[in-house]
Amino acid sequence: MTTTLLSDIGLLVTNDPSLGTGATGELTDAALLVTDGRVAWVGAAVDAAAAIAELGLGPLSALARLSAGGACVIPGFVDSHSHLVFGGDRAAEFEARMAGRSYEAGGIRSTVAATRAATDEELRARLAGFIAELRAQGTTTVEIKSGYGLSVESEERLVRLAAEATDEVTFLGAHVVPAEYAGRSDEYVDLVVGPMLTACAPNAKWVDVFCETGAFTVEQSRRVLSAGIAAGLLPRVHASQLGPGDGVRLAVELGAASVDHCTYLSDEDVAALAGSGTVATLLPGVEFSTRQPYPSGRRLLDAGVTVAIACDTNPGSSFTSSMPFCIAVAVRDMGLTPAEALWAATAGGAAALRRTDVGRLGVGARADLVQLRAPSYVHLAYRPGVPLVERVWKDGVLVA
Amino acid sequence: MTTTLLSDIGLLVTNDPSLGTGATGELTDAALLVTDGRVAWVGAAVDAAAAIAELGLGPLSALARLSAGGACVIPGFVDSHSHLVFGGDRAAEFEARMAGRSYEAGGIRSTVAATRAATDEELRARLAGFIAELRAQGTTTVEIKSGYGLSVESEERLVRLAAEATDEVTFLGAHVVPAEYAGRSDEYVDLVVGPMLTACAPNAKWVDVFCETGAFTVEQSRRVLSAGIAAGLLPRVHASQLGPGDGVRLAVELGAASVDHCTYLSDEDVAALAGSGTVATLLPGVEFSTRQPYPSGRRLLDAGVTVAIACDTNPGSSFTSSMPFCIAVAVRDMGLTPAEALWAATAGGAAALRRTDVGRLGVGARADLVQLRAPSYVHLAYRPGVPLVERVWKDGVLVA
Ligand SMILES: [Zn+2]
Ligand SMILES: [Zn+2]
Repeated sequence: MTTTLLSDIGLLVTNDPSLGTGATGELTDAALLVTDGRVAWVGAAVDAAAAIAELGLGPLSALARLSAGGACVIPGFVDSHSHLVFGGDRAAEFEARMAGRSYEAGGIRSTVAATRAATDEELRARLAGFIAELRAQGTTTVEIKSGYGLSVESEERLVRLAAEATDEVTFLGAHVVPAEYAGRSDEYVDLVVGPMLTACAPNAKWVDVFCETGAFTVEQSRRVLSAGIAAGLLPRVHASQLGPGDGVRLAVELGAASVDHCTYLSDEDVAALAGSGTVATLLPGVEFSTRQPYPSGRRLLDAGVTVAIACDTNPGSSFTSSMPFCIAVAVRDMGLTPAEALWAATAGGAAALRRTDVGRLGVGARADLVQLRAPSYVHLAYRPGVPLVERVWKDGVLVA
Repeated sequence: MTTTLLSDIGLLVTNDPSLGTGATGELTDAALLVTDGRVAWVGAAVDAAAAIAELGLGPLSALARLSAGGACVIPGFVDSHSHLVFGGDRAAEFEARMAGRSYEAGGIRSTVAATRAATDEELRARLAGFIAELRAQGTTTVEIKSGYGLSVESEERLVRLAAEATDEVTFLGAHVVPAEYAGRSDEYVDLVVGPMLTACAPNAKWVDVFCETGAFTVEQSRRVLSAGIAAGLLPRVHASQLGPGDGVRLAVELGAASVDHCTYLSDEDVAALAGSGTVATLLPGVEFSTRQPYPSGRRLLDAGVTVAIACDTNPGSSFTSSMPFCIAVAVRDMGLTPAEALWAATAGGAAALRRTDVGRLGVGARADLVQLRAPSYVHLAYRPGVPLVERVWKDGVLVA
């Protein structure tokens, strides 16, 4: 059993209201004890010695000690929506979109082609690079979706590779109808709910579908999610990104952990979410990178909806992997306060993944911590784009 | 004489149209030779050995060699507008503004009070921290203004401390009328153009004024700039941040190197800039952090105006120090292409500082280079918020 005392924490965010002020459970001049990768104690720095004695962890002088130097310490970010297993990128398509030009040779199908053409080793190296990039930016839990394979073999491969990097793997065979099934989307859904699901379910926790005009109808989406649930997966949904639709109500009806994008919501959608256990996950990088209008996070919070923020890292609509950037945009353009945005990027993401061991720093939680190069998390929005992540621990181990 | 060969540059931006494609002078599969801190040669990687022989730099095998690993290399960013010498911060004021609340106890005067109260050592340590932060984000040249002292002694101190960190020091005694001169702004201008200028000019290159309703009138601004010019300083102007005004035309009339903000420009302002040697410097962090409307960089470029991008790092209206972030916002919200935004953040900043030795990578230029963690500079906008600066050289020396 190894115990480490992290002290000199100027501001500690626990996300546990019983431990500190507000929904974010904030403490000033705090300390935190980590034993075997879990939080063993949290409190005022002046109480640390007594707590150590009471817990029988030996004399303070015998413990490993780290100082946060008066900085702010927060839970590691929980990024509940990403697409990190793919080949190639689409920088030229982005450049054309920003210039208002159409771009013929691109779209998701170019990523599908590049992904299918890549070797396991290439995809694995790319994924490892993204994981390192995420950690350096404070993300300690990440969900990863398949969806750039769109055949039984290639989706099985993507789910398997994702499972090497995270426990939060999502089977998204129903990302888009592949070219070879053009005009035969119901047949593609047959494939997804049949052999593709069978091949992918063993390595996945979640099933997801892109329920949107141009992708899958609400009936097709219900088939995909229901089949996934029957195979032991938990549902989550992409919906209302490009326009209003029935995806949010389907997500609530099926008890999805989260419905993601929520760019275009009706009052009925908001009411349905508020009365449900389904998290609304906002993806500020998407609206930033596509110049779509930002949805109002304020409206959701005021209605009592649980809100998460995620990056949706993907080569098409949002290639950021920066949770601090997404927080800054959520504060500026979605009406969240800095505290609400931080909660959404940590505890909110955990709720969207139905996790209680991450996204908070109460006793028993995983010791997934981020020490900022700032006295407060407000600086994540106040200093947009500045790399403010100083040190990152995952399960009590320094990883960045 | 030490010579280093930087090779395996997948994409090199020189900002010299005679060396490569477009206004950004781009080369693929390039190499670059650095001798004694300056660029000695730039060209196709396959031509490097011949160039080394021709320059008499000895056999290729005897040189120090570095590989960019196929990544993109760009000139170091030239951030031509910052306020880096100050005490305290104003996170609570930012938080209140984002929540739509007024904030009484704040404003620039709280920074003036904190700056006056800080010791030289405190300001110096803070400034050194910012310089390190800037370098890690790829900025190799930075302009620093005074303006949080507003007395003879304290402005002299700020200019002196700034001069320890950069050659590009700006005397901005006319930042705002201090509380002790409330209602007596002309008397304050007397002080600025008299003993304050005398005390500050020896350590400054530039004179600047905040020409805006609520700060200094165009007549007061002309007095400040003319006095600075008479004292051997070069003029630059803050104007049209909060509303339309005569500051831009004053800047052009006096031959200012740059007029900064340009948030509200009339057609006459744009025409005046287009026919002048005055750069229009856009400050995307300001509009981002204050929720002001973004000015159109497209309009300026289409009219033939030279455009720069800078951070305006300051604790009130823009606390970012990230040129990549500012580039991303300029592309999304100001209508610049990624190439135009990169040019504005490098060669544009150099033009705004009347420098020809930085902001470009032609022969003879300073070897101020940034190696990106990306195949293209397009990724600076395509991957907003992601730290993409891999290595930074200033005068040929690795500094980050
Ligand atoms: Zn997605
Ligand atoms: Zn300024």
